[in-house]
Formats: sequence, structure tokens, C-alpha cells
Amino acid sequence: MEIKDNETVDDLLISGLKIIQKARGFRFSLDAVLLAHFVTVKEKDKVIDLGTGTGIIPLLLTTRAKGLDLTGVEIQKEIAEMAQRSMILNGLNEIKIMNEDLRQLPKSFNGQYDLVVANPPYLPLNQGKISPLPEVAISRHEIKCSLEELVRTAARLLKPQGRFALIHKSDRLTELMLVLKANDLEPRRMRLIHPKLEKNANLVLLEARKGAQPYLEVLNPLIVYERDGSYSQELLEYYLGGESR
Amino acid sequence: MEIKDNETVDDLLISGLKIIQKARGFRFSLDAVLLAHFVTVKEKDKVIDLGTGTGIIPLLLTTRAKGLDLTGVEIQKEIAEMAQRSMILNGLNEIKIMNEDLRQLPKSFNGQYDLVVANPPYLPLNQGKISPLPEVAISRHEIKCSLEELVRTAARLLKPQGRFALIHKSDRLTELMLVLKANDLEPRRMRLIHPKLEKNANLVLLEARKGAQPYLEVLNPLIVYERDGSYSQELLEYYLGGESR
Repeated sequence: MEIKDNETVDDLLISGLKIIQKARGFRFSLDAVLLAHFVTVKEKDKVIDLGTGTGIIPLLLTTRAKGLDLTGVEIQKEIAEMAQRSMILNGLNEIKIMNEDLRQLPKSFNGQYDLVVANPPYLPLNQGKISPLPEVAISRHEIKCSLEELVRTAARLLKPQGRFALIHKSDRLTELMLVLKANDLEPRRMRLIHPKLEKNANLVLLEARKGAQPYLEVLNPLIVYERDGSYSQELLEYYLGGESR
Repeated sequence: MEIKDNETVDDLLISGLKIIQKARGFRFSLDAVLLAHFVTVKEKDKVIDLGTGTGIIPLLLTTRAKGLDLTGVEIQKEIAEMAQRSMILNGLNEIKIMNEDLRQLPKSFNGQYDLVVANPPYLPLNQGKISPLPEVAISRHEIKCSLEELVRTAARLLKPQGRFALIHKSDRLTELMLVLKANDLEPRRMRLIHPKLEKNANLVLLEARKGAQPYLEVLNPLIVYERDGSYSQELLEYYLGGESR
């Protein structure tokens, strides 16, 4: 397995999984880990991760249910190739990594998936400073794909009653719900993420179901840090929970 | 001050306020108290409470800011008359109680209010058992007013950039956001209410602003009970906080 000079191999501290990342710049975030633990996933689900980056989400989903059919789509060639090597490194060659623009996935994918996941760029182009590193910029800003394009793609890939789970900035929750509803994706499970219990939320985990009736379950808040700045018990369990979650 | 045989006078434990309620059946709920503490209210605001019931919200708002112009609208004649007596009992004769259908408020009210508040019925007609007590039924089920009619009314009463604050079941959050947006009311502040920290939310406090830009602030979760079943510190402060909140 080739590891390049500007890459590191990191232990995911769960099920012996390892992941290749850039030493500087493009690395996975906690947000992807939170999403992988939030999403409802069932044995043998056919799953696609839109904008998979390092491939962190498909890797972690292997610990959530058995017999999954996993695909990660990544528009950046070099990143997709790195994700592919991470799969091989873990002996998970059955996970497919596609170097493709998610907006241009083949029509044959339509209506084929039980679950679509995404940890998309959070910022519209007119908000926040755009990173000088193109691969980081693409992951943070809606350069290659808007929220609307992402949701429309998820809707077309899903089976009836299929699930779309994503993480996003909580200040865009209203827009997110409107775009989901406009694409017949009904928000069904939501969890707000607060850095600390007494702080405002900064992120939201949301799972929508295609063609479902309206009824939103709002889970208990996810608290990242305790008052003293240490990780909360729940966060620690994500890293040390092992096979059985 | 006449107190009827089937009524009680209860101490609100804040600023010496008292309220008249039915001994059985129609009494104010914790939800109205939570809303009165959540809402953004500024000195001299012109405020209207749609479906005021006992008048609990106008009463509590007098402890939040000075010089408010307060009106409560109540469709049920007997309840409106009871709320009127509560105002007199507290020497707050300047609070106006109108016995009126909120859907039929005069056109002269349009665009006049800084703040509209509502603790509306939570249930559509096809959900849950309808109370045999008509006054309770009207407060719980959308018999006299749907969510859509309420929001449309709030929108027409508000000044530009005026606020509409309400409490509702969190499982209807998506519908709520859609109806608000359809009436040019932008959700701007939200707080989920959880019976306990580790439980799902059951209620949501939401404040929208007429004609504002999209940006939702999600406040820290409001936790009602501690693990041991006692009221949380925040809830206790609502009742013992005195003048200065």
C-alpha cells in the first residue's frame, strides 16, 4: 500500500479501522463521525455517501450494520484515489469509491438506494473566507454543489421511503427543511449539536424519508464537551465503542 | 372582585401576580410560562396574545419589560371575562382583553404590532381524543383556528421586522417552519424543550421575524426536570426570579 509523503495513516480507534489523510489540509472532521453514528442503518442497506472525501463515513458505517453495499462519491480525483487506498488498507475492497460529480451520477442509480448520507460544504459562496487550498475550499464552500443540488440528487437516488441523512449548520435549518420538503423528503429525525450544554447549537443532524408523512422526532441534544472542556461521555463512546453500536 | 364558586385564585410566585382559573378544567399550563420567558420583548412594545385563555401571558409579560401595550384575544366569552377579572385583580386595567375570534380582528389592527405571541392548540382535529369539556377542547384541538390561520393572522398584525413567538409540539416543527415562511415570517430564534436532558424534545419555542433574512439561532436546550424528577434550576428561576428578568 502506497502512502505518500504528504499523507498520514490514522487509527480510527474503532474496529481496528485506519484511514489515510493529508498531513496538512484535507482531513476528516468530527462532524462526519457524528453523522456516521446518527444515521439509521440496517443490515444489507444499499448506501451512497455524496462527497465522501477521505471515505470516513463508509468506513465507519461498516461498524454499524452488516452486509452493507457501500459507495462513496468524490469529485476530486486525488482525494477519491486516496479514499480508495484507505478501503484497500482496511481490506474493505467491496466499498466502491467513484471519482464523479455527484450531480452527474448515471440515471441507472435512480431509486436504487436505501440510504443516502452527506456531510456537505456548509457555506454559500457569499459567506466566510474561501480557503486558498482548493480541496479544502471545495469541502467547505458550495463551489461544486449547492444544498439544493445535493438534496435533489439524494431524492432521485432513493427508493420510496428511503432515508437521507446529513449534517449541516443549524443556522440553515429552515432552508434545509424547505429544500427537503420541496423534494418530497420528509424530515423525520433531528438532533441538535451543542458544543456545551449551555451554548447555542452550531450543527444539526437530520434524517429525512422519501414520501413519508410529516412527523419529526427531535432527539436529545448531542453535547460535545463537558463544562471542564473534556469530551462528553457520548463522544468518548464513539471512539471506544467497538463493534457493537 | 367577584370570584365564582368554580374558580380559584392562584399566586404566580412572581411580582405578586395572581390569576383566576377554573378549579377544574381550564387552567394555564407550564407551556405558557415558558413562552412568556422565551419571547424577546422590549420596552413600550405593542403586544397581542392570540388565544390568551386565562390571560397568563400578558400578566407575565408585565414582568419582562416596562410600558408595554398589551392585548389578549380570547374567543370564549366566559374565559375572556375571567381573564378580564384577573387583570383587574392585579390592578392592571390597562391590559385589554378582547372577546373576539382572532381570525376576525379588525383591519385597523394590520401592521400595528411589534410582537404577536400565541400558545395555540397543538393538535389537528384528526389526532388525539377531543376533551368533552368544550373550553378545554378548544384550547387543545384546532377547532376554532388552524395553525395556518393563526400564522396568517400574526403576519398581518405585525409591523415590518415585528416578531411572532409561539410554542408548539416539536413533532410539527417542519410544518410550522413551512407555514411561517409562506407568510414571510422568518424563523430566527428557536429553543427545544426536553422533559429531561436524555429525553426527546416534546415542545419547541420559536420566534420569527417578519421580512427578515434567513438565519436561525438555536438556543441551548431547555430542560424541565433534573434526573431526580425535581424542577431544573432554570424552571425554578422562572417562578422565583422576581422583577428583574
